[in-house]
Amino acid sequence: MAKAVLILSGGLDSTTLMYDLLNKGIEVHAISFFYGQKHSKELECAHILCDKLNVPHKIIDLEVLNEVAPSALTRSEIEVPEGQYDSDNMKATAVPNRNMVMLALATAYAISIGANYVAYGAHAGDHTIYPDCRPKFVKHMTDAIASCDWSKVELLVPYLYMTKGEIVKVGLSLDVDYSSTWTCYKGGDKACGKCGSCTERLEAFAFANAVDPIEYETTEEESE
Amino acid sequence: MAKAVLILSGGLDSTTLMYDLLNKGIEVHAISFFYGQKHSKELECAHILCDKLNVPHKIIDLEVLNEVAPSALTRSEIEVPEGQYDSDNMKATAVPNRNMVMLALATAYAISIGANYVAYGAHAGDHTIYPDCRPKFVKHMTDAIASCDWSKVELLVPYLYMTKGEIVKVGLSLDVDYSSTWTCYKGGDKACGKCGSCTERLEAFAFANAVDPIEYETTEEESE
Repeated sequence: MAKAVLILSGGLDSTTLMYDLLNKGIEVHAISFFYGQKHSKELECAHILCDKLNVPHKIIDLEVLNEVAPSALTRSEIEVPEGQYDSDNMKATAVPNRNMVMLALATAYAISIGANYVAYGAHAGDHTIYPDCRPKFVKHMTDAIASCDWSKVELLVPYLYMTKGEIVKVGLSLDVDYSSTWTCYKGGDKACGKCGSCTERLEAFAFANAVDPIEYETTEEESE
Repeated sequence: MAKAVLILSGGLDSTTLMYDLLNKGIEVHAISFFYGQKHSKELECAHILCDKLNVPHKIIDLEVLNEVAPSALTRSEIEVPEGQYDSDNMKATAVPNRNMVMLALATAYAISIGANYVAYGAHAGDHTIYPDCRPKFVKHMTDAIASCDWSKVELLVPYLYMTKGEIVKVGLSLDVDYSSTWTCYKGGDKACGKCGSCTERLEAFAFANAVDPIEYETTEEESE
């Protein structure tokens, strides 16, 4: 049986990917990273879903990334920007080289448990904001991961050219429990509905003609 | 002035590279990783030399790598193998994907301080033992690092096709203080002189027609 290590954030994309891999008969081992992000509620959601789906779940503390390279997502004194996800100010939310660090550790884990794949949920919507979600970077990491060990590990990034709306459509067809996912970049009890991340999530559900099952602090109208 | 983040282990290769970069007028920021290795004396040596050369030195705890993928270098219950470095049993000393993890974090650090380069001391002698020291892997990581951020970081691996003996020759011409370097994989006060790593170090000094200034537990004859 094929085995995959999945980088699971607890957000829409990686959660959908978990259901997608399981649906293809792949044995999934989830790995999540805590790097001091304000939205650590993501990880609670990830854990709840893994429990529900009987997926082994490893949570790795990556405060070390904050130590070498602080960002708006991890430093309380830096404000999380509001508004559209594709605007320039969202670049402040980029954690330098976060994806390479997570992919490197996920690959180490894959080698140690004899997994065939490392899977992650990078998608088209992130390309303009995050350099380490671009196809070019993914291609180079695929090659690096394939050559880092005597055993052969393949990087799977099936949503690379899909929008978040298209991913939600896939997820709905797989009965993904989106009530146990988290996207908001702020640290509140309910999602803020205003940050770039919430805005993008709401647009994805609108694209899929579906209602987002989580609760929001504000309605969409208030946020405009 | 060009700026480089150097992955400094405290061993022969990376220490020589530090002197080499400084000699070329490059501003060096050293980063060392502690991942539970038995030979943590390497890091003390690294720190002493950075102090001496006025190089800022960051030590990063990477126990997380041990958490995802244990190896003979970090687990006390696994025996460190003795003998030639090129024999099969030395593969037990490989920490899965260690180099990708260290390169990823060094790159995050380089981005955050605006460095142009990440430098590391992979060399020809390691190619057959460690898959993540092979030119193929280095090439793919060079591409991945160049594409992981909007800023451009270049990976420097100048000793990739050199033997350890040739590196020591370069180091001697640069007056490298090899008395403050450490290579032995065991945790003793003096180097054991027997493990694959000591054997290789002694051969490198012999190649360079020089005497290794550090002390050994045993003489070479005793170890045969």
